[in-house]
Amino acid sequence: MDRRSFNRRILVGGGVAAATGVTSLSLGTIEASSAEPPPKTAPAGGVVRHLKLYAEKLTDGRMGYGLEKGKASIPGPLIEINEGDTLHIEFENTMDVPASLHVHGVDYDIASDGTRLNKSIVEPGGTRTYTWRTHVPGRRKDGTWQPGSAGYWHYHDHVVGTDHGTGGIRKGLYGPVIVRRKGDILPDKTITIVFNDMTINNKAAHEAPDFEATVGDRLEVVMITHGDFYHTFHIHGHRWADNRTGLLTGPDDPSRVIDTKIVGPADSFGFQVIAGEHVGAGAWMYHCHVQSHSDTGMAGLLLVAKADGTVPGYDPHDMTTHDKPAQDKPAQDKPAPDKTASGDTVPGKTAKESAAHDTAAHGS
Amino acid sequence: MDRRSFNRRILVGGGVAAATGVTSLSLGTIEASSAEPPPKTAPAGGVVRHLKLYAEKLTDGRMGYGLEKGKASIPGPLIEINEGDTLHIEFENTMDVPASLHVHGVDYDIASDGTRLNKSIVEPGGTRTYTWRTHVPGRRKDGTWQPGSAGYWHYHDHVVGTDHGTGGIRKGLYGPVIVRRKGDILPDKTITIVFNDMTINNKAAHEAPDFEATVGDRLEVVMITHGDFYHTFHIHGHRWADNRTGLLTGPDDPSRVIDTKIVGPADSFGFQVIAGEHVGAGAWMYHCHVQSHSDTGMAGLLLVAKADGTVPGYDPHDMTTHDKPAQDKPAQDKPAPDKTASGDTVPGKTAKESAAHDTAAHGS
Amino acid sequence: MDRRSFNRRILVGGGVAAATGVTSLSLGTIEASSAEPPPKTAPAGGVVRHLKLYAEKLTDGRMGYGLEKGKASIPGPLIEINEGDTLHIEFENTMDVPASLHVHGVDYDIASDGTRLNKSIVEPGGTRTYTWRTHVPGRRKDGTWQPGSAGYWHYHDHVVGTDHGTGGIRKGLYGPVIVRRKGDILPDKTITIVFNDMTINNKAAHEAPDFEATVGDRLEVVMITHGDFYHTFHIHGHRWADNRTGLLTGPDDPSRVIDTKIVGPADSFGFQVIAGEHVGAGAWMYHCHVQSHSDTGMAGLLLVAKADGTVPGYDPHDMTTHDKPAQDKPAQDKPAPDKTASGDTVPGKTAKESAAHDTAAHGS
Repeated sequence: MDRRSFNRRILVGGGVAAATGVTSLSLGTIEASSAEPPPKTAPAGGVVRHLKLYAEKLTDGRMGYGLEKGKASIPGPLIEINEGDTLHIEFENTMDVPASLHVHGVDYDIASDGTRLNKSIVEPGGTRTYTWRTHVPGRRKDGTWQPGSAGYWHYHDHVVGTDHGTGGIRKGLYGPVIVRRKGDILPDKTITIVFNDMTINNKAAHEAPDFEATVGDRLEVVMITHGDFYHTFHIHGHRWADNRTGLLTGPDDPSRVIDTKIVGPADSFGFQVIAGEHVGAGAWMYHCHVQSHSDTGMAGLLLVAKADGTVPGYDPHDMTTHDKPAQDKPAQDKPAPDKTASGDTVPGKTAKESAAHDTAAHGS
Repeated sequence: MDRRSFNRRILVGGGVAAATGVTSLSLGTIEASSAEPPPKTAPAGGVVRHLKLYAEKLTDGRMGYGLEKGKASIPGPLIEINEGDTLHIEFENTMDVPASLHVHGVDYDIASDGTRLNKSIVEPGGTRTYTWRTHVPGRRKDGTWQPGSAGYWHYHDHVVGTDHGTGGIRKGLYGPVIVRRKGDILPDKTITIVFNDMTINNKAAHEAPDFEATVGDRLEVVMITHGDFYHTFHIHGHRWADNRTGLLTGPDDPSRVIDTKIVGPADSFGFQVIAGEHVGAGAWMYHCHVQSHSDTGMAGLLLVAKADGTVPGYDPHDMTTHDKPAQDKPAQDKPAPDKTASGDTVPGKTAKESAAHDTAAHGS
Repeated sequence: MDRRSFNRRILVGGGVAAATGVTSLSLGTIEASSAEPPPKTAPAGGVVRHLKLYAEKLTDGRMGYGLEKGKASIPGPLIEINEGDTLHIEFENTMDVPASLHVHGVDYDIASDGTRLNKSIVEPGGTRTYTWRTHVPGRRKDGTWQPGSAGYWHYHDHVVGTDHGTGGIRKGLYGPVIVRRKGDILPDKTITIVFNDMTINNKAAHEAPDFEATVGDRLEVVMITHGDFYHTFHIHGHRWADNRTGLLTGPDDPSRVIDTKIVGPADSFGFQVIAGEHVGAGAWMYHCHVQSHSDTGMAGLLLVAKADGTVPGYDPHDMTTHDKPAQDKPAQDKPAPDKTASGDTVPGKTAKESAAHDTAAHGS
């Protein structure tokens, strides 16, 4: 199983301001009985940022987005901004086929659509600046309510292979976007899980990524789906709210609390859990619950450690762990993807070291 | 690509009353800073209406519902009513096989079920009156809350081909129903998009309908799915709330705002967008995001024009537009459906000219 | 068609206390105009219970869970508890292959995971105690809101056939769990519908279970999906809210009201309807709305009788009822499952006779 470590979120710059920006929408009234400081929350946006993004070929025919040359990863870097921010992304296509950057959820002119239809793709060796804008919720001049841009979104190629980017997506050209609202609770760590056809993050079957956390960590999961198949995303021992933030807004929020969600291509959602809350440390599976999908390897682990770093009952060398191919099925001979891919990197307003990252480059 | 024009909603009769019926549920408090008049809203219901509906054979083996003989369309006419209304539909089957009218969401006695099981189908040449009722939300006598009938619903055949109407639905016997609540915001235009197996509105692959709007129009989309496949419905550059109206009720509405939704047969939902809001004019794709579905033609355009009528960057004769078959795939030789089908027509309480219509017949 | 009778819920013990526990969350303010007593509601939890559960082989290669030896059923017994309750389940595997008990939604230590990975499966002839805990919603010490355990959940095997329990689930090792919140409205009857691959409750095609109710009954449906396929669950003439309880919390609840819901493996949800409300008595179909699924038999009946016990228009011996195989399709020769399986049984805090049950065993 492919294990990767990740570090606690390091808040730099905007973090202090964020810590004082507690508002009621996601957090509710803090009662006098609070015995612990409230979690940090997202600050107001409104900043203009610049970012460089590369499309690159990786080993085994895969492709990835990266913030630096030679550092592309699958999924591509996590792009995290706040409502009101604008992001100018200078995109360079280092590959030998046209590629593009298409995004969900945020505001962009048709020239940033990233499609052949709208002549916004990039030829081999070329460069193009895509501009993403976001906005806060509020009333329109006619009194009606307009939603803000906050959400768990994603970006992907829209031209490699077909005019819908089927080849590019299949090979790994996709990544997560988080747009936060002022007052949204910030996690300790963020991980990205992409069900891309029958793979998780383009890893080979039975090589799905594991993720690590410590009991009590506020862990954020961005879940994206791509390809041709529907799936049901499930985590053992942890649940979330089926709403915008994945967190109930309070006792009056009627949203369903779930631990399984049906998803299809280009769906994206996110949520936060307190690792091990009410259940403790352990090797908690996450997997697609379509039986034939989990059986063929769409399963990984959320390794929730005690404070001393141990995960009770978990032995990474134990051949009875879930990722062993079923006895009556030969192991798939699909080549294991390049393990040097560094995973997500967080750019954006509040420069932070990302979850699951060795390197981080930031917008400026 | 099949282009169709549509006109602004013309409010007749009930429209004036509707304009004064602004309530808070969907609109919220209008603040003093409002610089524009609020949009029109739905009036109270309670009206009894009569409608004539025909099932007819169309070209290429297709079948459709229509309000007048020889005017059947796919989808069938939009039937739009208000909570409290009752609708008596005199249904005439002009075809040579039994057919029926089965509806989702509204209230009806078992005699209006439209199924062979309940002996409510119509033989060739026969006529039957189906009665649909609706009700407002409120408290039951035991104090519990009961929901109203408001929603984006639909009707379809339940007997052609199989006892579940599989043949009738496949050939085009389906249409949209909107039940509005007093105070619901009325759109400028309504369009209906049906993912029926691998077609959109039974159009041939790469011949999906395009829809036109002008920046600032309040465009309503009714989205219905039929057949055997799941899909993910996506629009570029526009988003909606995943709740009853597709519009957030205000800042406390926890609903997710999305631009992609997984759907399966008989699902229906609706929403309103302000065309081009935050993104401007352009040829914005809508498509199924299942990659093999979009690649084989499940994609059309929302053509959002500037006030001067131009759509920046869009040339309908440009062969680089998205609806060209992929280069390595031959164009499907499925015959293009009859372009004379007039599309939706709006009957119902407030007589209005429908979106995407040449002709309109109204209940009386 | 497989008909089964079921009786009104008999409240014993906790029922009286429950009747006085009306709170506002699900019920809202009872207005002075109420002419009927409010429905009973769930009491506060906090009780520790013990239960015995058996995994057994049934006829035709099926497997089931049961509360007594020789009484296993498909689905397994309904396990119904209140937030705050703890349940110790002594699970005995009477079969000749390893089996387990894995649960969704509730709290459990990794030792109760029911997986090979976590060494919590049970060898043939063995016994293991699984402990499920639940908790009420409330504020954490840091002021953030945590959801409670309430929900429509389920349990299933996680080891028969594959390490994800694909064989056990296919053969029938699954059942419903309801965790109620204090104040949640209690139904008159509860039924469980499981779409397991192409079957309903593992019944043969065209032998799906029918359910009976009388107009005015508060009927609760627990709907679970298993296997490899997605489905769309639909009931004729009845609707529910797409939120935690399936009931709107009141006029401000923005949730969509639906009569069709897309589901995939391990999804679960529940809702209550007033049988025949606004539509009257009748043989109301429920079915998967994927056309090829309903055509091959994924359809049953909700038989809503008048107070005199008659169901208008319904003749169980009429060959035109919906469950007759389509004329151009031979009846499938899959053997009909054992009709002696008794179905759900309700254990839990408030001892009640379950819907669709001949026998009931209770936790102590």
